Amino acid sequence: MSLESDLALANRLADAAAAVIRPLFRNAFTHEAKGDASPVTEADRAAEAAMRKLLDAEAASDGIIGEEYGAERPDAARQWVLDPIDGTVSFMAGRPIFGTLIALLQDGWPVLGIIDQSVSGERWVGATGRPTLFNGVEARTRRCRELADATLATTGPQYFTDHDGEHFMALAAKTSHKRIVFGGDCYNYGLLASGHIDLVVEAGLKLHDFAALVPVVEGAGGTMCDWNGDPLHAESGGHVIALGDPARLEDVIEGLACGH
Amino acid sequence: MSLESDLALANRLADAAAAVIRPLFRNAFTHEAKGDASPVTEADRAAEAAMRKLLDAEAASDGIIGEEYGAERPDAARQWVLDPIDGTVSFMAGRPIFGTLIALLQDGWPVLGIIDQSVSGERWVGATGRPTLFNGVEARTRRCRELADATLATTGPQYFTDHDGEHFMALAAKTSHKRIVFGGDCYNYGLLASGHIDLVVEAGLKLHDFAALVPVVEGAGGTMCDWNGDPLHAESGGHVIALGDPARLEDVIEGLACGH
Repeated sequence: MSLESDLALANRLADAAAAVIRPLFRNAFTHEAKGDASPVTEADRAAEAAMRKLLDAEAASDGIIGEEYGAERPDAARQWVLDPIDGTVSFMAGRPIFGTLIALLQDGWPVLGIIDQSVSGERWVGATGRPTLFNGVEARTRRCRELADATLATTGPQYFTDHDGEHFMALAAKTSHKRIVFGGDCYNYGLLASGHIDLVVEAGLKLHDFAALVPVVEGAGGTMCDWNGDPLHAESGGHVIALGDPARLEDVIEGLACGH
Repeated sequence: MSLESDLALANRLADAAAAVIRPLFRNAFTHEAKGDASPVTEADRAAEAAMRKLLDAEAASDGIIGEEYGAERPDAARQWVLDPIDGTVSFMAGRPIFGTLIALLQDGWPVLGIIDQSVSGERWVGATGRPTLFNGVEARTRRCRELADATLATTGPQYFTDHDGEHFMALAAKTSHKRIVFGGDCYNYGLLASGHIDLVVEAGLKLHDFAALVPVVEGAGGTMCDWNGDPLHAESGGHVIALGDPARLEDVIEGLACGH
């Protein structure tokens, strides 16, 4: 398939998920705790099922890696990675800053990514070699002349081990620490791509949490890597840096290292 | 003045602030660090100035307590309390979950409160003896049968002292701790009034941060108090509990006390 048709399919996947999620937002929905005690709602499950149904019909030879329903055709060179609701707790709390994540991996590398906020109707689309689009208009990260002036975001301290938390706080102390924003999940990476946030640092992310973010952030001029500055891959251990201005990468890694 | 005309004026104040804030959201705006290093933008200042101008024209004998421009006529029995942007860091990061807060104190007690989200066009209005309205429709908090099932929100760990943080974590451990949401400022209290969040616990709030929340939360069936269960007042030290189901108050206070 061409990138054009892959993009068209990815957009239809996002539409299908949004059609399920939007009517359930701030409405009655069932939920339960998963094995790790994190919550899952009927919106997560129905949105992933809707996307898988579309993929089975339109890309039957591609693999699928989904947060809720696992892997299918794991040996295929092309893998669709789906997170129907990244930020389920925000969704449950009625906050419109969660998102649907869709990535296409080619030989393990994300070549296409979508972050879709279905309530506010905001969609970031990234693809290798193309500028990232936010609702159809080119998105660009912003310059960040020094770390001391950076706005830093992370979803919550509970996602860090104590050890990770120490490193994060060491970095935070070097940023404009009164401008740290908590919460936000994937939405923070979209805002970084659009030049409103300089830096997102997280731990504990899984492939379905970060695969879609890479083409979005890099197609907007930013960079993504792990806490050592190495490229992200499925076994990165979920330590993720997203940085709007790649010129600050050395400062960020130095800030995180904090002499440990 | 009658409550009716006070409500009309409060809504016009919110409209005036929104007209300033909306065009600056995700746009170019100047900002600087205040004395305590927290940021203030031209949107905060211009929105408060717009509200003060309206109050000077329409309620010239009332007092004003504003976050950015201080107190005026401090001896008046009626005091308007203004926080043009509660959640300035969220505003700066392009996240539509900050809010404008407007309260009217009568002899020190908040008899009217507004939480206005100007980007998404969401407004909660509370007044003593009346049901809270969300965009004109009655809002109700939800039942919470046990603390273990509660969704808990707080803006960020950086607003707690180490000591406060220990108490918060002790409480968090008794809630559905995988469902804690961080970030959100005043927006969390609106969502609590609408029955999407059960509990908000914060420290370090000032009068302009919490005065408007009280009529909104209580008019929706919830309760607000300090960490000891006492009513909030200007010198409460900013330790705030908002709870959707008052039947859980004892559990919350016990959870926060954690044997200290």
